[in-house]
Amino acid sequence: MRDVAVVGIGMTSFGELWRTPLRSLWAEAALAALDDAGLDSVDLITIGCMSSGLFTGQEHLASLLADELGMAGVPAARVESACASGGLAVRTGFAEVASGLSDTVLVTGVEKMTDVDGADSTYALGTAADAEWEGFHGITFPGLYAMLARVHMQQYGTTREQLAMVAVKNHANGLLNRHAQYHLKVDVEGVLGSTLVADPLRLFDCSPVTDGAAAVVLTTVERARELQPDRPPVVITGSGLATDTITIANRGSLAALNAVKLAGERAYAMAGRTPEDIHLAEVHDCFTIAEIMATEALGFFEPGQGGPAVENGLTALGGKIPVNTSGGLKSKGHPVGATGVAQVFEITNQLRGEAGQRQVEGARIGMAQNMGGSGGSSVVHILEVV
Amino acid sequence: MRDVAVVGIGMTSFGELWRTPLRSLWAEAALAALDDAGLDSVDLITIGCMSSGLFTGQEHLASLLADELGMAGVPAARVESACASGGLAVRTGFAEVASGLSDTVLVTGVEKMTDVDGADSTYALGTAADAEWEGFHGITFPGLYAMLARVHMQQYGTTREQLAMVAVKNHANGLLNRHAQYHLKVDVEGVLGSTLVADPLRLFDCSPVTDGAAAVVLTTVERARELQPDRPPVVITGSGLATDTITIANRGSLAALNAVKLAGERAYAMAGRTPEDIHLAEVHDCFTIAEIMATEALGFFEPGQGGPAVENGLTALGGKIPVNTSGGLKSKGHPVGATGVAQVFEITNQLRGEAGQRQVEGARIGMAQNMGGSGGSSVVHILEVV
Repeated sequence: MRDVAVVGIGMTSFGELWRTPLRSLWAEAALAALDDAGLDSVDLITIGCMSSGLFTGQEHLASLLADELGMAGVPAARVESACASGGLAVRTGFAEVASGLSDTVLVTGVEKMTDVDGADSTYALGTAADAEWEGFHGITFPGLYAMLARVHMQQYGTTREQLAMVAVKNHANGLLNRHAQYHLKVDVEGVLGSTLVADPLRLFDCSPVTDGAAAVVLTTVERARELQPDRPPVVITGSGLATDTITIANRGSLAALNAVKLAGERAYAMAGRTPEDIHLAEVHDCFTIAEIMATEALGFFEPGQGGPAVENGLTALGGKIPVNTSGGLKSKGHPVGATGVAQVFEITNQLRGEAGQRQVEGARIGMAQNMGGSGGSSVVHILEVV
Repeated sequence: MRDVAVVGIGMTSFGELWRTPLRSLWAEAALAALDDAGLDSVDLITIGCMSSGLFTGQEHLASLLADELGMAGVPAARVESACASGGLAVRTGFAEVASGLSDTVLVTGVEKMTDVDGADSTYALGTAADAEWEGFHGITFPGLYAMLARVHMQQYGTTREQLAMVAVKNHANGLLNRHAQYHLKVDVEGVLGSTLVADPLRLFDCSPVTDGAAAVVLTTVERARELQPDRPPVVITGSGLATDTITIANRGSLAALNAVKLAGERAYAMAGRTPEDIHLAEVHDCFTIAEIMATEALGFFEPGQGGPAVENGLTALGGKIPVNTSGGLKSKGHPVGATGVAQVFEITNQLRGEAGQRQVEGARIGMAQNMGGSGGSSVVHILEVV
């Protein structure tokens, strides 16, 4: 198995980009990553996208987007695992370079979510839940995560304020990220006073509907050194993928995210690392409770200690393990198929030491954790600067 | 790069299976393949599916289907390249085993197409075309392929009767396949007398709307020999993937399928084979013209000679290179995401010498060619018995 490095990164600004179609968003991010890598061709394009069919009436992105880039002919593949589609695109590109099937892969993620009416957007996102056992009964994701939050609060004493502190931290980080959808300082009072969505979750506990795209270029470590002799390669040392039951009704416990735990364990095992080795992480904070549960599932904190950790500033910039320095899904925005790739963008940027005001000093080992549905799937990557 | 073998195959019967939901179809094929392989667990599941979102309101199949098989936890990945989704699932599994990331992969394809009303089914399929430059103007796939047929007839003198002979041959083959949707003998007169769909294509030039699933298990050649000491391994020696412009308006010529040609060349190069080495092929006959054009693009016949080849029986059972011994998409049926995997099922069955009445004598090298949209993407695999 060959060693695989990230040699280029690019992304659009995230936001409600009503005037920009999917293909243009995608091309902007793709071209930025190719430019950063110093490449004008690749052996393969992978595309993470949750549901361009339901959001925009367009499937077959492999053909559409290779074509849009003027690269018709080049092999391309779209992958989908709901909101973990971007992470899966990274994994797919990683396998291609590791195997020797491809030497350079343009890994991309994209979602165009605003150009449908509100009802359709909620419906499209809802298809990540079990259509027959969850969706049919009318529940959507805020409701599902609200149930996870209730159980976590009851079982571990996680407080409503601790949930709010996740949003406060991530919005503070988003203020330092020019790509973020929101540049907006919020405080605990503001979160607690926002509209109730699904008790106990309020508007400021929820990630937004977002348009955007992100891209990274993968190649062998040797090729990375040739392309960028002045930059130390950022190497993907661990890749973990896992599933859980799609409906939360079938899980042994609602207080833990088993797919995240398994994917994390697989990534740690491949990289030969433990949670203590990780200097910073981007985790899937689609709702505030999700960040708390992810930091526990990944072993950064004991079960039940994710809430106190955020309260004590352990996950803030300058803390023990900064989490979601990019602003996370909460503040940076959550174009679902792009999110997993944008996480790798952020970690690479940090490991290169190019994250500006939000730079984590001395960051050499980072993690990106992406998740589908209410935890039905997860992808975890460990990146290291060598 | 490790050598990869097919060690198990399974599929449902194809047809209008109104009473069977997607997850049950899928599980039937998956369990049959695992049973054939003699395995009860795998390292990864890949799922080819074009549009469960639009057809059934369910995305996130990776989680849904791992769960349905009682395997929640196992890594799973859905891939999509319109009607080439199944071939892409094979490619994705191949990369995982070749790289060493996974030792055993359950590769699957599925589509549930009948449980929507007619208008939606046509709309869902139409999202494989360019939504803005083709679909918006009202054209659907019979119209797109009718244009390709017209150009081919004009440029090469391909006849209306030759198109019909593709259907006659494939329905004759389908009569010998218990999994086929149709067990129906047709003659040239019958095809020419069927309802006009998009001139010159008639009803019997078109593949049907179908429900179904197929699965194959991939592993290393060494593991395949351990699992099945009495069977010679069927090895994937070549894998080629390519794209073309999504809209046919942007192509240099409408008389050739460039993605098929490129994917074929890449597979031949990897396998160290030429078209003359191939003993039989499953090609993507979504319309009769598509089979003729595919046999030319893959180099079995010179451009323009695909029509005469079928007229002269070169692609029939017992001919120079039997094409679509399974009955093809035309007679076996075309559950779009399942088709590419079902092609590998047929080739493996033939190379094992277990194809019964439709067995190609002495078949040792076979090819599977899967295609998305009007040729916007294609996946080609070469399989050999060693």
